[in-house]
Amino acid sequence: MSELTGPIRVIGAGLLGTSIGLAASRRGITVYLSDTRDEHVRTASGLGAGQPYAGQPVQLVVVAVPPDHLGEAIQSALADGAIVTDVGSVKSPALRELVGDLSRYVGSHPMAGSERSGPLAASAALFDGRPWAVTPHAGSSDHAVALVTELVELCGAVPIVLSPEEHDQAVARTSHLPHLLAVLVAGRLAEAPAQHLALSGQGVRDVTRIAASDPMMWKQIIGANAEAVLGVLSEVREQLDALISAVDGDGDIVAILERGVAGTRAIPGKHGGPLTPTRSVFVSVPDHPGELARLFADAGASEVNIEDVRIDHDPGRATGLVELVVREDRAEHLLSSLEARGWTVHR
Amino acid sequence: MSELTGPIRVIGAGLLGTSIGLAASRRGITVYLSDTRDEHVRTASGLGAGQPYAGQPVQLVVVAVPPDHLGEAIQSALADGAIVTDVGSVKSPALRELVGDLSRYVGSHPMAGSERSGPLAASAALFDGRPWAVTPHAGSSDHAVALVTELVELCGAVPIVLSPEEHDQAVARTSHLPHLLAVLVAGRLAEAPAQHLALSGQGVRDVTRIAASDPMMWKQIIGANAEAVLGVLSEVREQLDALISAVDGDGDIVAILERGVAGTRAIPGKHGGPLTPTRSVFVSVPDHPGELARLFADAGASEVNIEDVRIDHDPGRATGLVELVVREDRAEHLLSSLEARGWTVHR
Repeated sequence: MSELTGPIRVIGAGLLGTSIGLAASRRGITVYLSDTRDEHVRTASGLGAGQPYAGQPVQLVVVAVPPDHLGEAIQSALADGAIVTDVGSVKSPALRELVGDLSRYVGSHPMAGSERSGPLAASAALFDGRPWAVTPHAGSSDHAVALVTELVELCGAVPIVLSPEEHDQAVARTSHLPHLLAVLVAGRLAEAPAQHLALSGQGVRDVTRIAASDPMMWKQIIGANAEAVLGVLSEVREQLDALISAVDGDGDIVAILERGVAGTRAIPGKHGGPLTPTRSVFVSVPDHPGELARLFADAGASEVNIEDVRIDHDPGRATGLVELVVREDRAEHLLSSLEARGWTVHR
Repeated sequence: MSELTGPIRVIGAGLLGTSIGLAASRRGITVYLSDTRDEHVRTASGLGAGQPYAGQPVQLVVVAVPPDHLGEAIQSALADGAIVTDVGSVKSPALRELVGDLSRYVGSHPMAGSERSGPLAASAALFDGRPWAVTPHAGSSDHAVALVTELVELCGAVPIVLSPEEHDQAVARTSHLPHLLAVLVAGRLAEAPAQHLALSGQGVRDVTRIAASDPMMWKQIIGANAEAVLGVLSEVREQLDALISAVDGDGDIVAILERGVAGTRAIPGKHGGPLTPTRSVFVSVPDHPGELARLFADAGASEVNIEDVRIDHDPGRATGLVELVVREDRAEHLLSSLEARGWTVHR
C-alpha cells in the first residue's frame, strides 16, 4: 500500500492541520499549507510542517478548519480535482451541505487534541497510537477511502471505519455526553461553600476535569451534533429519573450501579487494544526532584513495565504518594522488589 | 497539644481501622484491636497495627465498622466511658440513632480509601495529606473534639471541621453526585457497539473510572445519605432539563458550559492547598522498562518537580506519550532541558 505519494495540501494550520503537516513531512511527503491567518502558515512552515500553498496541484486535501466553516471549505476544496478529507469532530452536517460529485470526499476525525490550540501546540506525535475515525459516505470511491486511511496510518494513528451517522452517534455517547455530564457535576460545585469543597477527593477531580474546556468550542461541537446528543441526553434523563426513584426507595439502585460497572468494562483497552488486568502499587515518595527518578529506576530494574502513574501529594508536605499501575501478574514482584530497595510500599 | 496519649481501641480491623492502628502504633501509642472476624485481628496485629482487645481501659475508641452497623457500634462503645469517634462516610443517620449522654462522641470521616479492602490493604500512610472531616454535634465536649482532631493529625491528615449535616451535604455534592453521574455515563456505554466504543478517548475514561466501584458498598453509602443526595440529584435534573432545552435551540448552552468551567476552578488544590498554575509537557517515551526511569532522571536533573504524571500508551506499540504536569513557570525550562538530552518533546 503506497498510493499516498503526495503532495498534500492542508487547509487550516492550527493544532491538527500543523500536526498532520509535520507527520507527513517527516515521512518525505510534500505538504502545502494555507490558512486565513498568514502568520499561522509562517509559524507552521517554520516548524517544518510544509510550504505555503500557491496553487500547486496536489493528490490529497486535508480540511482542518473550525466546525462552523467546514462544509464551505470542503466544497471549495473539491473543486480542484483532488481527493478531499476533513478532520471535523462531527461528520454528518458538513456532508449534508455538500453538492455535486462527492466520490472524492471521505470525512475523518482523529481522537486526539490538546487543551492548547494553534500551530505552536502541534506535534508530529499528536496522533501516535490514537483512534482516528474514517467515515466514508455511500458515494465515496474506494480509492479515496484507501488514500485517507493511508494518511491516518502515516500519522501513526489507528483507523476506525464508521459511517458518518454512526460516527456522530458514537461521539455523542463516548465524548459529548461525558463532557456535558462533567459540566453538570462541576456546575453543582460552582456555588458550594469552600469548606464543603475542601472535602474534594480524586474522584470528583477526575469526573470534572474535561468540564474546564473552552465553552465556545464546545458550543460549536454540541450544536453540530445536536440531534445525536439530544438522543443520549434523553436516555440519561430517563435513567436519572429511575435513579431518583431508586434513591427515594422505590427502585433497584444496585441494578443501576451494576450497569455502570458493566459500562466501565465495555471501554476497550487504550487505543482499542485488549484490556490487560492491572493492579495499583502505592509507594511513599519524598516530594523533591530526583526521588521519582530513583523510584522509576528501581521499578525499571525490577523489569516491570509501568502502565500508568498517578501522583497524589500536597506541595506543602514532605511526602507524596505515587500510584504505579502495573500488570496484575507483575504487582507482587514489583512490591517485593521495591521493598527490598527500601521503599515504603502500601499493599 | 498532646492530650492524646492512648491507649486507643479500634473496633473493626478493615482497611481504615488497621491503617489507623498502624499510624497510631508508629507514633508510640498503644492500640487494641477488635473485630467480629478473629482473623482480621490476627492479620492486623501481625502487621503491627496493635494487640487484640481484651477489656483494657482506653482513652479513645475508633469505630470503623460498615455503615449498616455504625449506630449500634457507637452506642455500645460509649458505654465504656472513653471518648468515641467513628470513620463512617455519612454522619447524620448514626447520630440520630444514639441515645443518652453524647458529649463524649465526635464523628469523623477520612477522605481516603482504596479499591481494595481488608487489613492487608492497610497502610500507615493512607491518610497522609488527605482531608479528614471532624464532625462535632451540638453536644460534643471540647475535650472530645480536641482528642479526635489530634488523632487526625497523628495520622498525617488535614482536619476539616464541619457539622454532621454540613458534612453530609458536602459529600453528597463532592462525592456521591460525581459517583452517580459517572455511573449514568458508564451505563450508556454498556450496550453500545464495540466499533463505537473504539473511539473512546481519555475524557470518557476519566469521567467513568469511579463507576467501577463495588455496587453493594455504594448502595449502603447512598442509602445512608439519601436525603442530601436527592437534593443534589433534583438540582441536576433541573440543570439537565435546561441543558436539553439549550441543545434543542431554546436556551443558552454557553452559560451552562461556563458554569462548569467555574466549578472546576472552585475545587481547591490537592488537599486544600493553594492551586498552583501548572502546565503539561508531553514526551515520547519508548514503551519498555527503564525508559521512564531515564526520563525521570533527566527531569530530576533539570531540578523541576513533577506535580503529576499521565502515561498514554498502547501496549502493542513501540512508543508511549508521557504527560508531565509541572509548575507553569518551570515548563519551558523542563522542555528545553529534556530536548537538550535528546527527548522528543511536544510543545
